[in-house]
Amino acid sequence: MGMEKTNEDFTVYLAQRKALVEEALDRFLSPGNGVPERIMAAARYSLFAGGKRLRPILCLAAAEAVSGAWTDALPCACALEMIHTYSLIHDDLPAMDDDDYRRGRPTNHIVFGEALAILAGDALLTEAFHLLARRDLMTGAPPEDRLEVIRLVAQAAGMAGMVGGQTLDLQGEGRHPEPAYLTDMHRRKTGALLIASVVAGAVIAGATDAQKEILAGYGEKIGLAFQIADDILNVTGDRVMMGKSTGSDAVRGKQTFPALLGLEVSQARLAELVDGAAADARRLGERGEPLVKIAKYIMERKS
Amino acid sequence: MGMEKTNEDFTVYLAQRKALVEEALDRFLSPGNGVPERIMAAARYSLFAGGKRLRPILCLAAAEAVSGAWTDALPCACALEMIHTYSLIHDDLPAMDDDDYRRGRPTNHIVFGEALAILAGDALLTEAFHLLARRDLMTGAPPEDRLEVIRLVAQAAGMAGMVGGQTLDLQGEGRHPEPAYLTDMHRRKTGALLIASVVAGAVIAGATDAQKEILAGYGEKIGLAFQIADDILNVTGDRVMMGKSTGSDAVRGKQTFPALLGLEVSQARLAELVDGAAADARRLGERGEPLVKIAKYIMERKS
Repeated sequence: MGMEKTNEDFTVYLAQRKALVEEALDRFLSPGNGVPERIMAAARYSLFAGGKRLRPILCLAAAEAVSGAWTDALPCACALEMIHTYSLIHDDLPAMDDDDYRRGRPTNHIVFGEALAILAGDALLTEAFHLLARRDLMTGAPPEDRLEVIRLVAQAAGMAGMVGGQTLDLQGEGRHPEPAYLTDMHRRKTGALLIASVVAGAVIAGATDAQKEILAGYGEKIGLAFQIADDILNVTGDRVMMGKSTGSDAVRGKQTFPALLGLEVSQARLAELVDGAAADARRLGERGEPLVKIAKYIMERKS
Repeated sequence: MGMEKTNEDFTVYLAQRKALVEEALDRFLSPGNGVPERIMAAARYSLFAGGKRLRPILCLAAAEAVSGAWTDALPCACALEMIHTYSLIHDDLPAMDDDDYRRGRPTNHIVFGEALAILAGDALLTEAFHLLARRDLMTGAPPEDRLEVIRLVAQAAGMAGMVGGQTLDLQGEGRHPEPAYLTDMHRRKTGALLIASVVAGAVIAGATDAQKEILAGYGEKIGLAFQIADDILNVTGDRVMMGKSTGSDAVRGKQTFPALLGLEVSQARLAELVDGAAADARRLGERGEPLVKIAKYIMERKS
C-alpha cells in the first residue's frame, strides 16, 4: 500500500515536471519573432510530439538534488530536449533509419518533406545553443558555469558523442558487431546526452566537483540502462504502446542487447545498472530521491 | 603603380590570413580524440575543400580593427567557418539544392553518402559551439563576452537567420518573388552570419557598443553586396572559376538580382553597398583599412 502510494506520487511528479517543461518549451520556441512560419511549424511539430521529456526531467532533478532549486535549470532542460528532438528528426530521415512513424505519428519528413525536416533539425540544434546563451535566462548561474554547460552539452551532442554514435550505428547495421561495439555506440548515441543532462543541471545549481562526478556516474548507468530497456521493449513490447512495430530492430538488422546477450542476461544487466544508479543518487542525500525513482522508472516503463 | 602595389599587398594579406585560419581549423578539428574516423573524414572533407575563408578573415579583421590584436578571435573565426561549411553540406543534399559539385569537387553526399553528409553537417554545427565554449581558448575575453559571442552566432545561424533564409529560399524556388522577398531571404541566408562574423570578432576584442554598431552596418552592406556579386558571377562568370555551371541559377528557377533588377542596376547597387561598407570601416580609423579592402574584394572577385 505504502509502495503504491509512493509510485502514485512519483507518477504525479513526472506529469508535473513534463507539463512544466512543455510550458517552457512553448515559451522558448514560440511562433513569431521574425521566424518564417513554415520552419517554426516543422520544428514545433516534432518538439511537441509527446515525448517523455526524460532529459529535461533529469536536468531539473539533478539541479534540485544539488541545491534544492530547479528554476535556473529550466532553459537548459529545454535546450536538451531540443537537441534530443533534432536527433530524432534527422535519425528518422530516409537516408538514415527511414522511419515513417514515431510515437504513433507520422515523422517530420513525412509531414513537411525531407528538406524542411533537415532544416527543422538544424534549427532545433542551433536554437538550443541560443537558449543556453540568452542574456535574460539562467541569471543565477555565473557566466563561467554557463560556458561550462555549453561545453558539456556540445561535447555530448558532437562527433565524439551523439553524432559519433549515430555514425557507428549506421556502420554497424547489418553486420554483427561485438557487445563492446554496441556498448560504445549506445554510450555515445544516447548515454552522452543523458550524462550531460544531469551534469549540466548540477553545474547550473553550483555543484562541487565531487557532486558532478557522482552524477556523471549516475548518468552513465541510466544511459546504458535506458538503451537495454529500449531493446527489451522492442522484443517484448506491444506495438500500440511503443508507437512503432515490435521487432522492428530485428527486421532492420540492428544489433540489440537481447540478441547479443539473451533476454535474461539483458534483464539482469539492466537491474544491476539501475541499482548502481540508485546508489549513486542516494549519495546526494534526501534531495537525490527523485533521481532514484527516475532510475527505477527507466527499468519499469512500458513504452 | 602605387595602386597595384597595394592590391598585391592585400592579396598577400588574404593568403596569409587564409593559411592562418586553415592551420587553426586543422588543429581544432583533428582526427583522433575518440571520434569515429568516418565522421571526422566526412567533416574534414568539406572543411578543407578550398573555401575563401571570408567569414573567419572578416572576424579577425574586425577584432584587429577594434584592438589591434586578432589572436583571441581565431577560435571564433574557425567556428564561423565550420558553421558556414555545415550549411553548404546540407544545402547541397539531394532533398535541398541537389548539387553534385561544389568548388569543382564532388559534394559531401556524393563522396560519403547522404546519411554521413547529414551527420557531417550536424557535427560541424555542434563542434562550432563546442569551440566557442572551450576552456583553454579565448582566455583574453571575459566569460560574459564569450556568452554574447555564442548568442550572436546562434542567432545568426538559427531560425530567424541562416536556417530561416534557407527555408525562404526553398519556398521561393520556381515562383517569382518580389525583390523585397529576395533581399529578406539573402539577409537571413548569408547576411546574418557575415554580420555575426564581424560583430563577434569585435566583441572578443572588447568593442564598445558604438563600434559594434558600425561593424553591424558594415556587415549588413557587405552581406547583400556578396550576394549580388554572386548572382552577377552566376550570369557572367566562367565555369572553371566558379566550380559550378554558369547560369545554373536560371536553369533551377532561382530568382537572382540580375534577373529581377537587370545587370546594370545590380552592378550599380553592388558598388553603392561596397562604398557604404568602406565608409563604415573607415570610421574605425587606420586599423579599419583591411575591412575597406575586403569590401572592395567582394565586388571585384572573379570566383
